[in-house]
Order: sequence, then C-alpha cells, then structure tokens
Amino acid sequence: MIIDCHGHFTTVPKSFRDFRAAQVAAANDPANAPPLSDGYVTDDQIREGVGNGQLKLQQERGYDLTLFSPIAGLMSHHLGNERTSLEWATLSNDLVRRVCDIYPDNFVPVGMLPQSPYAPPKNSVPELKRIVNELGFVGVNVNPDPTGGYWTGKPFTDKEWYPLFEALCELDVPAMVHVAASCNPNFHGTGAHYLAADTAVFMQVLQSKLFEDFPTLRLVIPHGGGAVPYHWGRYRGMSLEMMDRPLEGLLDNIFFDTCVYHHPGVELLTKVVPTSNVLFGSEMIGAVRGKDPCTGHYFDDTKRYVDACEALSEADRYAIYEGNARRVYPRLDAHLKAQGL
Amino acid sequence: MIIDCHGHFTTVPKSFRDFRAAQVAAANDPANAPPLSDGYVTDDQIREGVGNGQLKLQQERGYDLTLFSPIAGLMSHHLGNERTSLEWATLSNDLVRRVCDIYPDNFVPVGMLPQSPYAPPKNSVPELKRIVNELGFVGVNVNPDPTGGYWTGKPFTDKEWYPLFEALCELDVPAMVHVAASCNPNFHGTGAHYLAADTAVFMQVLQSKLFEDFPTLRLVIPHGGGAVPYHWGRYRGMSLEMMDRPLEGLLDNIFFDTCVYHHPGVELLTKVVPTSNVLFGSEMIGAVRGKDPCTGHYFDDTKRYVDACEALSEADRYAIYEGNARRVYPRLDAHLKAQGL
Repeated sequence: MIIDCHGHFTTVPKSFRDFRAAQVAAANDPANAPPLSDGYVTDDQIREGVGNGQLKLQQERGYDLTLFSPIAGLMSHHLGNERTSLEWATLSNDLVRRVCDIYPDNFVPVGMLPQSPYAPPKNSVPELKRIVNELGFVGVNVNPDPTGGYWTGKPFTDKEWYPLFEALCELDVPAMVHVAASCNPNFHGTGAHYLAADTAVFMQVLQSKLFEDFPTLRLVIPHGGGAVPYHWGRYRGMSLEMMDRPLEGLLDNIFFDTCVYHHPGVELLTKVVPTSNVLFGSEMIGAVRGKDPCTGHYFDDTKRYVDACEALSEADRYAIYEGNARRVYPRLDAHLKAQGL
Repeated sequence: MIIDCHGHFTTVPKSFRDFRAAQVAAANDPANAPPLSDGYVTDDQIREGVGNGQLKLQQERGYDLTLFSPIAGLMSHHLGNERTSLEWATLSNDLVRRVCDIYPDNFVPVGMLPQSPYAPPKNSVPELKRIVNELGFVGVNVNPDPTGGYWTGKPFTDKEWYPLFEALCELDVPAMVHVAASCNPNFHGTGAHYLAADTAVFMQVLQSKLFEDFPTLRLVIPHGGGAVPYHWGRYRGMSLEMMDRPLEGLLDNIFFDTCVYHHPGVELLTKVVPTSNVLFGSEMIGAVRGKDPCTGHYFDDTKRYVDACEALSEADRYAIYEGNARRVYPRLDAHLKAQGL
C-alpha cells in the first residue's frame, strides 16, 4: 500500500474561499458575519474538486491513500480572531471528514486547529479532542507561527505549547508542523515561509529538551524537512556542540516527508535520514502544479523520485510508503486493520 | 589556487565585543559612549586571533586565500541606530583591512554596511564606496533583514534597495546576501535565521524582475543557498508557473557557496546547480567548530566534501575553487593578477 501522508483540500470551490473572506471581513462585526450556510460545500462540489483533482491524480500515479487535511494556506490563523478561527477550523475539519466519507478507501482525515496569534495553544485542545475522538481524525496540522510570517509568538518548544503536546500524546496522534499562509511580503508562502518554518522549528527542537518532557510526542516536518537534510552535517555538529547529544537522538520523535520535487533532493533525504524517519508525501495538489518540461512529468509526482532511489531496499520502500505512516499514525493503522488492511 | 569566498573575523578579542556592547548600551546617550580607542585591536591580537585560527586552519586544509569579512553575527544591525551602525561598520571594516595587510597572501577584504532597521539602503552607499575605492575591498555583505529576524523591513527586491544595487553595479562588486544575528527567539542564528534568509531572498528574487533592471548585479547566496538546491525542483516549477521563465534564467546573477557541512549536501549542490554558479566556501571559523566523531575531520572542512565529488571534472574543480571567484569578484581577479597570480 502506498500512503501519501501529506495532502490538502486545495480544490475547494470558490464559494468556500468567499465565505472565509466575508467571515474575516466581519470578524469584529459579528452582526454582519456571513451565515455558516454560505460556507457549505455540497457533495457534488466535493466530487468536482477532489474527484477530478486529488483522487484522479492519486489513481493515475498509483497511490492508495492520502492523509487529507484542510488547505494549509487558507488556515490563515493570522486573520480574524479566536472566535473566527474556531468557526473556520470547525467548518474546515467537518468538510474534510465529509471528503473522507465520500471516498473512504482513498482519504483519511487530518485536522487543523483554531489557533490565533498569542492565543494560548491550550485553547486548541477541545477541537483537537473533538476531531480525534468524535470524527476519527488520525493526525493534526499544528501551525508553529500563527502570526503568518512575522514570528512574534513564542517558540514551539515554549511551555505555553505543552498542554497541546500533552493532548497529542494522550490521544496518540502525531502533529505535522505546518504553517499557513504568509502575510509577510519577505516570505513567499510555499516558496519561503513553509521551508523556513520547517527549518526553524527543527532547530528550536534541537535546542530544547522537548522529547525528554514528551518521549512519545511525534512531529512530522513537512516539505522534506525544509533545509534540514541538506544541512544534516551542520545540525549534527550543532547538536553535539550545543546539546552534547547526537542529532540522531531526535529521531524517535521527528519524521520528514518526501515533498521534495526532484530526484536528487529525495535521494539526499533518503541517504542522510534513516529510512525509518521518512514518510512518503507529495502535497498534491499543492505548491507546484505544473509538469517538468524536461521529463513531461508533474513536479509533485514524488513517487517517481522515491522509486528512482536505487539504494533503497524493498524493506526501505515498504517503510517509506506504508510502514512508517502506520507506526507514526497509530490511529491510521487501527483504521486500516479494522478494514482488514 | 583554492579561494574560500566566505570567512569572517570570528576570532576577535573579547575587548572588541565589549566595545560593541558598550557602544550599543550608550546608543541613545552619546555623551557616555565608549571612546573608539576601546575598540582598537592590536596587531598582536590580530595575530593571536587569525594567526592561530583562520590562517592556521587555512594552511592545514590547503586553501590559499580567504575572502575575509567582519563577523556576521556581530554586524547586529538591529541594535543601536544609524549612527552606531556607521561607527561599527567603519571600525569593523578598517579592522578587516588591517588583517589583510598583515596577511596579504592569505586574506582579501570583504566589507559590511552601516545598515539599520528602516534606514534607506542608499545610506550605506558612502561606506560601500569608501571600502571599495579607498580600501581595496572586493565585495560586501548585505543584510536583507536589518531587523534581526523579524523581517519587518521591505523585501530585498523593493525599489528602496535600488540605489545600493546601482552602486554595486557601478563598482562592479558582488554582494553576499548575509544576515546578521537573530534577536527573534524563533530563529536560532546560524541554525535557522541564516538558512531561512538565504531561502527567502532567493524566492524574492525569483518573484521579481530584479535582473532585468540590473543585468550585471551579482548575488552570492551563502550557506549553500539555504534550502534552495535541495528544493531545486520546487523552484524550477514555481519559476515556470509564476514568472514564465526557466529558473536557470537567474543563473547569470546568482551564485551559491559550498558552506554545507557534509558530503551528500555538497554533492547535491554540485549536481543540481551548474558548476559555473558554485563558489568554494567554508565559513571557517564559524557556525560549527567541532569535528565529526564519525570521521575525525572538522564539519566545516568543506574542501573534503568537494574533493569527494567524483562526478566533478578538473574544469569543474577549477571553476569552483578559483575560476568562479575570479569571475564573480573581478576586483579580486585584478588584485591577484597584479601579483602575477
């Protein structure tokens, strides 16, 4: 089985985006807020967006299952306030649940949280518990920078995050550390903010004793870990110098996806990071939608790059494509086993 | 000849750092500012710092020459004000000039600018002209984020930077795009801010028409280009989609150094980026000072990693070690030729 750990509902209808814009515009004027019904997406619209989009490409490329979450750019926690964030997270998570109900063999839900700048992360715990306990979500995206590229909140390893980490451990679900859109013109969203965030959070964790406090916490760093695997030697050296521990000490708790859009990058990732810490991911349909004119294949068809890594054994491939995802997301494993898979 | 394009005077005496701290503390109280003489570094102190540090390692590792600039972390443009930044840049640049006078065969000077948050970059032009025209500097470090990790200034491609770019083109010196220390706890300096900045500025340039406006401007992106070569496919795709031009169109103007502290990273860099755009660099003595316990060699001995890239031809090695530096830094080339080199 080939499990793509990283997909977003990027193909929502325009009406869904319009609702969000209207909701944010009325954030401080609730009397004029759009009704929730304006944000409703019909089953036909889901089939139009996902059926002709992610599902079609999933099948063409030969993946079996995608961990599917709300569109990351639209999480936009920097907009509105805590109330609008909660409303938006609820709506978005409920929608993802419906996608997975319509296509139960192809998508398994991962959630977003109602974060807001400077709001205590513990305020997101109720929605986390709701989506996991009531809606069957197997993981959640956590935004380490709700300010949208200004990074004026506290580091991800600050104690203010601990109630959220406690809940993640208690529920036994991993977090994908995934920022939303950037409102800082210095950081293009998918071209800079995403990769900078992946790198910055990894370094925050390296500097911390987070996993001494949470030995079972599991973090998936998307987009191939930002700059981290490419600079693996830098981090190995810094970990030894600053923390007197091998970098590999983080690898019980940190995992990277394969959302790296060329073969040499994926080859480097699988060469320097143990294959037990690499999860197949494509982020399709996402940051790069075109085809490489040199090959005629989609840039984000990352399975081709993994397949072309000749040094990988069959056991490595099983781990990257399926085994690691089942281990890191135990609720996914339980869900599959319940289906006899 | 082996030219290291990226070295900083990281081994300054404590008195030099103490002067800077006192100067910043009195930034708004000039009457109590320390005298400039407190910041004076003696020839013996230079020999102690550089002779036992960068020079010794340079010789042990078999490099011939280092482009040497003030310590990047201490540039700290976010501290003090424009007046203290100018005083500090002048002092730091003059000191680097003296290092190169003491060791004329081993070091060639590269400068820093008196940048300050929200100060127009054009205010740095006089110091740039002074160090190039009067002191013989061959390049300069330009900080794309004088706010020290909060990124509240304008992107590097904003028109406010243009007077500085005009001066760079007029003087025919390249800029290394190099941030200073981070005062944002979310971004560790050498472990996150540096790499995030390298990545973010590359993306800003990708989104812009900067090189249509400045066809001869040359930018060196340090630290192996941050996350960029690792995500080369992402950027190739985005450049085609967003700008309808191949990413390779930027390569008349953008160059990457080899400050990547493990062999697989340097191999990826030299595989995906044309060798005409890769400059040898080590940033020694810098971010990672220890030895790799697995090999017994210094992490930042990047020459070992380049040497181990079997796919590189002799012509490639000449380009990376010498030819590209002489082309990108024409004043270095003239300086060497004047010595019959």
